Amino acid sequence: MKNSCLTLLLVLLSLLQAGAQTLAPAIQRLNPTSWWVGMKRPTVQVLVYGPGAGTLAYTINYPGVKLVKTNTVENPNYAFLDLTIAATTKPGKVQIVGKKGSQTLTQAWELKARDNAPKGQGVTQADLIYLAMPDRFANGDPANDKFADLRDPSSDRTNPFLRHGGDLAGATQRLGYLKDLGITAVWFTPVIENNQPLTNEGGTMRSSYHGYGFTDHYNVDRRLGGNAAYKAFVQQAHAAGLKVVQDAVYNHVGNTHWFIQDLPMKSWLHQWPTYTNTSYRQQPITDPHAAQIDRKVTLDGWFVPFLPDLNQQNPYVANFLIQHAIWSVENFGVDAWRIDTYMYNDQPFMNRCNAALLTEYPRIHIFGESSVTNVVDQAYYVKNHINFPFKSNQPGGLDFVLEGALLAGLKEVGTPAATNWDGGAQRPYQALAQDAVYQDPTKLVNFLDNHDHNRFLSEMGDDLDRYKMGLTWLLTTRGIPSIYYGTEILMKNFKDPTDAEVRKDFPGGWPGDKEDKFTAAGRTARENEAFDFVKKLATYRRDHKALHSGKLMQYLPENGLYVYFRYDATGTVLVASNTTDKPASLPTARFSERMAGFTKARNVLTGETLSSLATLQLPAKTAVVLELLK
Amino acid sequence: MKNSCLTLLLVLLSLLQAGAQTLAPAIQRLNPTSWWVGMKRPTVQVLVYGPGAGTLAYTINYPGVKLVKTNTVENPNYAFLDLTIAATTKPGKVQIVGKKGSQTLTQAWELKARDNAPKGQGVTQADLIYLAMPDRFANGDPANDKFADLRDPSSDRTNPFLRHGGDLAGATQRLGYLKDLGITAVWFTPVIENNQPLTNEGGTMRSSYHGYGFTDHYNVDRRLGGNAAYKAFVQQAHAAGLKVVQDAVYNHVGNTHWFIQDLPMKSWLHQWPTYTNTSYRQQPITDPHAAQIDRKVTLDGWFVPFLPDLNQQNPYVANFLIQHAIWSVENFGVDAWRIDTYMYNDQPFMNRCNAALLTEYPRIHIFGESSVTNVVDQAYYVKNHINFPFKSNQPGGLDFVLEGALLAGLKEVGTPAATNWDGGAQRPYQALAQDAVYQDPTKLVNFLDNHDHNRFLSEMGDDLDRYKMGLTWLLTTRGIPSIYYGTEILMKNFKDPTDAEVRKDFPGGWPGDKEDKFTAAGRTARENEAFDFVKKLATYRRDHKALHSGKLMQYLPENGLYVYFRYDATGTVLVASNTTDKPASLPTARFSERMAGFTKARNVLTGETLSSLATLQLPAKTAVVLELLK
Repeated sequence: MKNSCLTLLLVLLSLLQAGAQTLAPAIQRLNPTSWWVGMKRPTVQVLVYGPGAGTLAYTINYPGVKLVKTNTVENPNYAFLDLTIAATTKPGKVQIVGKKGSQTLTQAWELKARDNAPKGQGVTQADLIYLAMPDRFANGDPANDKFADLRDPSSDRTNPFLRHGGDLAGATQRLGYLKDLGITAVWFTPVIENNQPLTNEGGTMRSSYHGYGFTDHYNVDRRLGGNAAYKAFVQQAHAAGLKVVQDAVYNHVGNTHWFIQDLPMKSWLHQWPTYTNTSYRQQPITDPHAAQIDRKVTLDGWFVPFLPDLNQQNPYVANFLIQHAIWSVENFGVDAWRIDTYMYNDQPFMNRCNAALLTEYPRIHIFGESSVTNVVDQAYYVKNHINFPFKSNQPGGLDFVLEGALLAGLKEVGTPAATNWDGGAQRPYQALAQDAVYQDPTKLVNFLDNHDHNRFLSEMGDDLDRYKMGLTWLLTTRGIPSIYYGTEILMKNFKDPTDAEVRKDFPGGWPGDKEDKFTAAGRTARENEAFDFVKKLATYRRDHKALHSGKLMQYLPENGLYVYFRYDATGTVLVASNTTDKPASLPTARFSERMAGFTKARNVLTGETLSSLATLQLPAKTAVVLELLK
Repeated sequence: MKNSCLTLLLVLLSLLQAGAQTLAPAIQRLNPTSWWVGMKRPTVQVLVYGPGAGTLAYTINYPGVKLVKTNTVENPNYAFLDLTIAATTKPGKVQIVGKKGSQTLTQAWELKARDNAPKGQGVTQADLIYLAMPDRFANGDPANDKFADLRDPSSDRTNPFLRHGGDLAGATQRLGYLKDLGITAVWFTPVIENNQPLTNEGGTMRSSYHGYGFTDHYNVDRRLGGNAAYKAFVQQAHAAGLKVVQDAVYNHVGNTHWFIQDLPMKSWLHQWPTYTNTSYRQQPITDPHAAQIDRKVTLDGWFVPFLPDLNQQNPYVANFLIQHAIWSVENFGVDAWRIDTYMYNDQPFMNRCNAALLTEYPRIHIFGESSVTNVVDQAYYVKNHINFPFKSNQPGGLDFVLEGALLAGLKEVGTPAATNWDGGAQRPYQALAQDAVYQDPTKLVNFLDNHDHNRFLSEMGDDLDRYKMGLTWLLTTRGIPSIYYGTEILMKNFKDPTDAEVRKDFPGGWPGDKEDKFTAAGRTARENEAFDFVKKLATYRRDHKALHSGKLMQYLPENGLYVYFRYDATGTVLVASNTTDKPASLPTARFSERMAGFTKARNVLTGETLSSLATLQLPAKTAVVLELLK
């Protein structure tokens, strides 16, 4: 009985396989979906996908385009076509022709002319980045909130794990709000299609509203408005003078990504005999004493079970990812490139990828997420001054070390620990004092929180003095500042019980919201105090070169008082912070190296004029920002 | 009335000055007190001191010795004679002749032949250093306990601040004890004359038994036995196969040093308008954003008020110190050079000084004390892999970062924190994982405590399990281990209320001591357990090359279990530590990179043989040391 069942099954299976092989081949996908003439990089590898796509013989007959090689792999449904595109090639539709026996398939693939729209403009210290989750920021088009043909067809604002309907149209409508606040660049958590199912794994909800599980690289999620809405957003942002940062994910994709559902080859992914998670440990990468297995677990272990880990040492994977990066910048016109889970990627691949982007867009800024706990490991992932066996070419990175120091120090503001030997302002001071490890620490992106951390105000114990001091430091010290959406209206929460707690909807972003925090009238007095504070500092920063490219000079904090300067030929800004809970008088003779020649100052936050600089009066728990005047 | 008084005073002053100038000049001191022919460095600057020594015209008539220049300075009691000594010069007494008018002074200065005794042998990972305070270790000659003509003529073992009478003769008698314990090198806190007074400054006793306030560089303190006893100690140590580390102090001297009492020139010291202490802060030296004044306070501020801070940018000071270093190695035959308060010295001077020693003694080891809190700052003071604007040439250094990590981690052994994300063994693991910043981390000197820190056993909460684990790590990880005297017999204490608490007499070191911990019979069972433990590991280490020059491979600690290996072609030693309070079984498949080919092992501490290596049984709070066997 059992044996005859098995025999029957095997027969059925062999019939199905034979059927698959004899089905007429078809071309269902070409990735990249299009390309451009006139790129610096003269080659493209086009992934052709469809039943039996790997069994076809391909030809291309288009002036300037040469099919150098057709690569086939384990799965017959894939072919990888190596093309060269001569500099003289004209835009047009390239016909990709595949033949098998008497059958001929033709698929058009567009080679576009490059447009003159701004792209790859970079972000610098002159910028202030606003990080938002598009599903949670503003809903401009309720019609795209959900689609019945998606794996998760639901939308429900009362459920923290479901889609809430925020979209690019909504964000576009709020560009004026952002500009008014002093923001100069917008960074969304990933906008690319995350057609993942909603699952409940042992009580843990696995959702995809955050965007980090791509299912089709070449489509922006329909629920955000699709490719057209993203392109429109970038155009509108540029028109308003704002830049756009794209959030890239190379390390993994969603487990329902189309190419995961029909894997090109086994080595497309990091495969393990049994499921192996990354250790999330930084040490095995940089430790000269590390064991191979520990390195492998950090790098090749999966981030979570439903995000398969791409093997970037596979050249097809590498080409796919690099081309997608270039395609994204060229197609949408984004200006900077934030890279998710940077430290878990194959670093030689990352260097090639960064170099490819920088070759096409020399001004683009690239800053990865490497959540590490010391400057040595942080330096490893950016251009650095340490003679590691591997040399990163990444221009920037998110400064997790400074974030940790800022939070730990600010939490001590107003407590006895503010004057501890290594407490309070000593923490950011000491973090910045290790900047010698970086080639250019001004290219690091600073932050006080993000979508994965407790919200800043909650970390501050809901203390507005600490909040203001933290934002003052963020907006005046070296590096590129970024703030997380809602910080300016005092959104708060801890991650406990889930990340969704720090990813709440921006009140007023949805039609019919009872409160509208996008407007002064909709904000409480305390919220307006915070908003106006951020706006004042942000707009001052935006308009003053000393905070864009001026050097930093910081003085050793003494008695809980921390003084630093940003300065260049155009001006000198003094930031004096009293982290204690008592007012302080601070003689300035010690700071003569930076203050010589200045006789008075303007208090940037209050507008007051100081007619003498001999002694500064510093209120308790306050950072004073002074523009020095002759 | 007032005016006539002033006039009288001025007249008296001018008479005194005239008197001083007309006193017969005299030569009271020559420093260095002697030199050698055949040194690689062909120049010596001889400091001539005495009343009016700077007013004499000097000549030297000795074949091969040329007086290139006589330098005079602000104080007429000094002359600095620049000599060159040709390679062909014969040993003998050089007559230094000073003339003024009709007066001729002649002072003999010996140029010796170099002896063949070992010197500058260096210390390496093959060594185990024993740090002792000579006043507190053993009293071999009660006749030299005190001298009525010294500024502090007292000796009293009941007072923690007074001299206790320990000396070099006592230490010489205990060489057998040290050798038996497995020690291969002895490092004394400074032996150079500290003829400082005993003072009470606002309740704080200022004493000099510790040796860090030199009063005459060219004399070993009489209470330790003087130069002859030191030379004898070194000879006896070498005869017993032990090396000697000298503790050098460049940054400061005692305020009753003879040259401080009659300063050669104002710039001999770091002078401040009002007394300025160093901030003891590391950051201003390495911080690219630092202010000049902060750097100056760290470097040129005084360590304490009674230790004047030498200005090593003054070339006379620099020559004096460099020559004294060479003289000390050549005269006494010491093998390695520990440098006090390394980070407070002028670093270009330190490089010249290190280079001078290494030129004469290429194998000598130099390791400074830079009490810093992160590897970036620690790397700054040794040969490193960071592209700092200043490049240190120091071969080694005391590893304060690892000490801090070891203590913090070991304190968590047996507690829930042992399995925290960054707790327990993670701390030393993470410290060592940053070794990429050093050119050669194996040249760092490791320690668990010293004369300035709480004693290790007290830091461990008097827990013998933690104590054993700490000593196991110290004696098996990378670097050169050192232990502080008395650690092996469970001496303990906290620094509170004063440093003297951790500098108690070694019981049995004094004639008539009731207890003699130098002998097994005099030790308690627990003390013998500790002594035997240290001895077993130290002698194993001494005899096994894998622990001298083998590489380190460390595995990411998991569940409170930390495994690392030392290995080379001659052998592989596995150290597996269970930092939890429960026994653990540890499968070894993960460690195959180092264990492949080995089938059994010998437990170094118990002598047991393990016939299978598939799973290790690790008792709670225990580090197991296994020599792997084929």
